[in-house]
Amino acid sequence: MVDVQSVLEGDRLVLSRLLSQIENDTREGQQALADLFSHTGQAQLIGVTGAPGTGKSSLVNQIAYHYRHPQDGGEPRKVAVVAVDASSPFTGGAVLGDRIRMNALTGDLGVFIRSMASRGSLGGLAGTTSGVVQAFDAAGYQTILIETVGAGQAEVDIARLAHTTLVVEAPGLGDDIQAIKAGILEIADILVVNKADKPGVENTERSLRNMLQLADPTRRIFWNHERNEIVPGQESGNDESIWEPQIQRTVATDGSGVPELIDLISQHRTHLEATGDLHRRECARLAAELDLRLQGKLVSRWQAQLSDGLYEKVLNSLVAREISPQEAVQRLLDEKEGK
Amino acid sequence: MVDVQSVLEGDRLVLSRLLSQIENDTREGQQALADLFSHTGQAQLIGVTGAPGTGKSSLVNQIAYHYRHPQDGGEPRKVAVVAVDASSPFTGGAVLGDRIRMNALTGDLGVFIRSMASRGSLGGLAGTTSGVVQAFDAAGYQTILIETVGAGQAEVDIARLAHTTLVVEAPGLGDDIQAIKAGILEIADILVVNKADKPGVENTERSLRNMLQLADPTRRIFWNHERNEIVPGQESGNDESIWEPQIQRTVATDGSGVPELIDLISQHRTHLEATGDLHRRECARLAAELDLRLQGKLVSRWQAQLSDGLYEKVLNSLVAREISPQEAVQRLLDEKEGK
Repeated sequence: MVDVQSVLEGDRLVLSRLLSQIENDTREGQQALADLFSHTGQAQLIGVTGAPGTGKSSLVNQIAYHYRHPQDGGEPRKVAVVAVDASSPFTGGAVLGDRIRMNALTGDLGVFIRSMASRGSLGGLAGTTSGVVQAFDAAGYQTILIETVGAGQAEVDIARLAHTTLVVEAPGLGDDIQAIKAGILEIADILVVNKADKPGVENTERSLRNMLQLADPTRRIFWNHERNEIVPGQESGNDESIWEPQIQRTVATDGSGVPELIDLISQHRTHLEATGDLHRRECARLAAELDLRLQGKLVSRWQAQLSDGLYEKVLNSLVAREISPQEAVQRLLDEKEGK
Repeated sequence: MVDVQSVLEGDRLVLSRLLSQIENDTREGQQALADLFSHTGQAQLIGVTGAPGTGKSSLVNQIAYHYRHPQDGGEPRKVAVVAVDASSPFTGGAVLGDRIRMNALTGDLGVFIRSMASRGSLGGLAGTTSGVVQAFDAAGYQTILIETVGAGQAEVDIARLAHTTLVVEAPGLGDDIQAIKAGILEIADILVVNKADKPGVENTERSLRNMLQLADPTRRIFWNHERNEIVPGQESGNDESIWEPQIQRTVATDGSGVPELIDLISQHRTHLEATGDLHRRECARLAAELDLRLQGKLVSRWQAQLSDGLYEKVLNSLVAREISPQEAVQRLLDEKEGK
């Protein structure tokens, strides 16, 4: 049994054990999450994603440091970093072993860094990450940074967990990386051009602005009928309920641009609260989690009822091309209905 | 209705329409796939994956060209290229619009290039890709190249569709990319070091060899008790049933190394057939497809039976933190059992 009370009181060792339970999807871990759930919903969840080579990890370290040492003289926040490596579905972990490299964070008990790797099952990583985030939330971590390496579907699913999503870019990463942007851009609340001291930063920022225009119809160029000319801007007027993704340059290695980035994150938070988007994102997030859990439960419940050997028999007919996949599914389902 | 007979006879226009039906997951598309399924299982499926910036697309073009113009004087094969962009779950496609850029392939009716992008649903892309591959297979394409951009979970799921998987690397892509390798390496049958004319190629190849040693216990260094010294190689003896991932250098822009690569692919194919691995991979592949379809069907069947408003009611309680996700699932499932 997990000592839930100790987690709520911020015991790092008990929390650490709970995180392992969640990662291994044990019954005890699930029970503890259920017990802790009513204490969640307090933390600010910040997603940080983007293509490889953009310096995400260093940037995450800088952001964590700034929340620990606020420049406005406010109280330092408890910060958790969940570093998710969806690109390594086979070698559970280790890849991110170099995470705890920022000396300024080492030994700070207000920071908890956890690396995770996919265990292979489709959708499994998003579910596990959600559980880990809930545990940190219940344990009183006020800011949770969810960092994903790569830019695939799993990363996007994980980014959806966050209230504010940062997409990190960097100059000079080549055309293939540019292609990746188009998809990932659309989940960005804030675009960070990291390594802004490198050559080509103007090009990177310009191409991001162009892509933002293409991605969102409200930012397109319009034909103004009255003035009879092409004008930039929104035809639908300046709707304040819409958040325009902001672009911020940073140099994570020396921290420049990071205070401005922290400020943008806080502006986005204010926007979310003022417009009711925070509640809407929360609903969408929990609905996605609910669906994932339902799906898993439905499949396992169905499997438990299946008669011995039927699955293998149907699979063999399928491999022999005697039946189609559609027919195979029908045969397996029909049996349950007594046909 | 899709004209299945025309697809079997190789009509490109009808095939092209069918591919759209499959991508949009229409009832007609599903019906056609079921009708065509008994004609599948003939094609050789080659997966090509790896990190962005490695020159995968050019390499795929070169491989396609070589199968069209065999150097051993054999018959040219019909080649299909399925280019999957899992990194763009929002902007359905377009990103890969520059695919048809190799003049040597343009106008060749023995080559069919199809670009696909994720439609957002988890697991959806792997399912759709599988359908597209089946359509090409039934239409008599003897070699199907499945190219994925990126290196996330979705790409790995897609790579599992293939008989032979090529993982493409390139020199000088930085540490973050190196990290990605560790996971993706384990699905590689052949490792391609593309851009082999660039500086750093020796380092890239060396680090790949090191990673291969770490990844597979049969390739580790052992203590030889008789000789009383450390020896490289397998303690379990030289088991011919195990395929050792091969490394091949290429320069996709001028085609060097590509004939040798084609030869390795053919060696791997021979190995798969000789050891029975081909049949085992086929079983695993179809079992994965079956599971995906079952999962979708179970969820949609359950949803159809759900009483009006219950889902929303439960979701609201969840968002208000009155119940945990575990309790929410239980409430939704219990209703179905009349509790």
